[in-house]
Amino acid sequence: VSSSQDGTPRSTEHERIARLSARFATNAPEVRLGIGDDAAWLAPDLVLSVDAQVEGVHFLPRFAPYDVLAERAAIAALSDLAAMGARPLAMLSSLILPRTLEDAALDQLHEGLARAAERYAAPVIGGNLAAGSELALSTTVLGRADAPLLRTGARPGDGIFVTGHVGERALGLRALLADRHDAALTTFVDAWLHPTARIAEGLALRGVASTCIDVSDGLLADLGHVLVASQVGAELELSALPFAPGFEAACALLDLDALALALDGGEAYELVFTATTPPSIAATRIGTIRAEPGVVLRELDGSIRPHATTGFDHFRT
Amino acid sequence: VSSSQDGTPRSTEHERIARLSARFATNAPEVRLGIGDDAAWLAPDLVLSVDAQVEGVHFLPRFAPYDVLAERAAIAALSDLAAMGARPLAMLSSLILPRTLEDAALDQLHEGLARAAERYAAPVIGGNLAAGSELALSTTVLGRADAPLLRTGARPGDGIFVTGHVGERALGLRALLADRHDAALTTFVDAWLHPTARIAEGLALRGVASTCIDVSDGLLADLGHVLVASQVGAELELSALPFAPGFEAACALLDLDALALALDGGEAYELVFTATTPPSIAATRIGTIRAEPGVVLRELDGSIRPHATTGFDHFRT
Repeated sequence: VSSSQDGTPRSTEHERIARLSARFATNAPEVRLGIGDDAAWLAPDLVLSVDAQVEGVHFLPRFAPYDVLAERAAIAALSDLAAMGARPLAMLSSLILPRTLEDAALDQLHEGLARAAERYAAPVIGGNLAAGSELALSTTVLGRADAPLLRTGARPGDGIFVTGHVGERALGLRALLADRHDAALTTFVDAWLHPTARIAEGLALRGVASTCIDVSDGLLADLGHVLVASQVGAELELSALPFAPGFEAACALLDLDALALALDGGEAYELVFTATTPPSIAATRIGTIRAEPGVVLRELDGSIRPHATTGFDHFRT
Repeated sequence: VSSSQDGTPRSTEHERIARLSARFATNAPEVRLGIGDDAAWLAPDLVLSVDAQVEGVHFLPRFAPYDVLAERAAIAALSDLAAMGARPLAMLSSLILPRTLEDAALDQLHEGLARAAERYAAPVIGGNLAAGSELALSTTVLGRADAPLLRTGARPGDGIFVTGHVGERALGLRALLADRHDAALTTFVDAWLHPTARIAEGLALRGVASTCIDVSDGLLADLGHVLVASQVGAELELSALPFAPGFEAACALLDLDALALALDGGEAYELVFTATTPPSIAATRIGTIRAEPGVVLRELDGSIRPHATTGFDHFRT
């Protein structure tokens, strides 16, 4: 447990989730998997997860119209179903609304949720409205998965793969926070505003991937969850990281380290998975599972260095 | 749509739920019932609901230790399963935590959730932690219901029943808000702090009740939802309202109208149901369903007056 600046015990998000996970351990026969993976798994084939996006923490209202922010919040939650190899079934939305929020804004929030619901065939079947001092969008997602993709099961020698690009959404968020509208940054801002839940990819990975997780905290942090759960380590090839076209130049515009964004940037909603054989979906192999715990990075010059896993922590930033 | 004091359109909670309900209508084959009842109903027998409790809106931290507040928040959500005649299966908890919240407080929140989980055999299978400016506890509940109790189906002549007492929890909240600790108020404060989700009663009402709802907005407001859904009206006998011992005297201590609290006080989590024959569970008959729309109140002197349904609105108070 860490201590905050004023000396009171406030642990990190990861420590807090570990405590929560321990406190809510259950032997209920219908619960095949409780807290600790991307989603819970109920017998026979239901998976459930909840995710919240809070104004001032995950987004600022000036970033985009409310429909875009709400669609994004729903997609962030649906991404956990993708990481389980689940087909979306339904969503429930708990909205905390500032009292000053106008009806037009609420209609926009609904519009964005409805768009995600239609795009992912996950009807919004329940909701709750409550007042509060800041906008918060909490989305519960329910899906079907006959063979969920878990975090346990990675074996030495398995390839490590990632869908899409690394770091591009983290860069988009930095551009939004800096209120920068350079043409070279637009594509990354758009990537942040309009993520994709990799549902089709998750479904295609059933029976193929040995583990799967979505990048919400950061590539290294989320891979770290898999490594701990599977009791293995990993070697990552930095030269293999899939950068989007123009990514490094755009990072330079904001004085950002492209590699750091790629390894530690969160909210990417890409899938990181391990597999013995190359998968049939579009993905890039970025490394290999090793027996030795921890992560080693193979640098561009071929040298190797160990890396401590890090990631975004809502309670530290 | 109403207008707020500054003239911008901000509709009431009820209007907002109606809009939400319309926007999220779905024909998905697995959705037997979407937004609009106490919970959604998925084929074959799943019901789901979400409820949020926000600091400064639903409670103040000074009301009780965090474990009590968290247990209460979970019970408020579970009450919707009771109103559907469902057996709880699992819960997911989305917590928004002030950055200053200490680990001991978080442990207390978990403790309260775990207590509700154990009491109602509803393990917490998923959760999310996010930072925010105020504490908000959003709970998704999942249950099994082979024959859900809906809001449609009340027929003229059906009796109207309520479990427990009316108004006692609303009185407890008023005492907490006024920071009053008179001995005569203690029992009502305790009732507010420690509600019961009427799961056993809901299960016993399957096949017996023609409709069922839990009192969250207020007796008249929630009965009003049933009347609208069933396209009927009601006559309530004010002399039949089940007051807890000492209720009227305690209301007088705070200069409150006992009848108004009984009819309009929210967050009671008692079940209001209609049935042709008297139920086997402990409940009080408080009126009769009529064919004519609207609610008429039979006063203590036998006279009759119409009553507009009202209730607690988070966006108006």
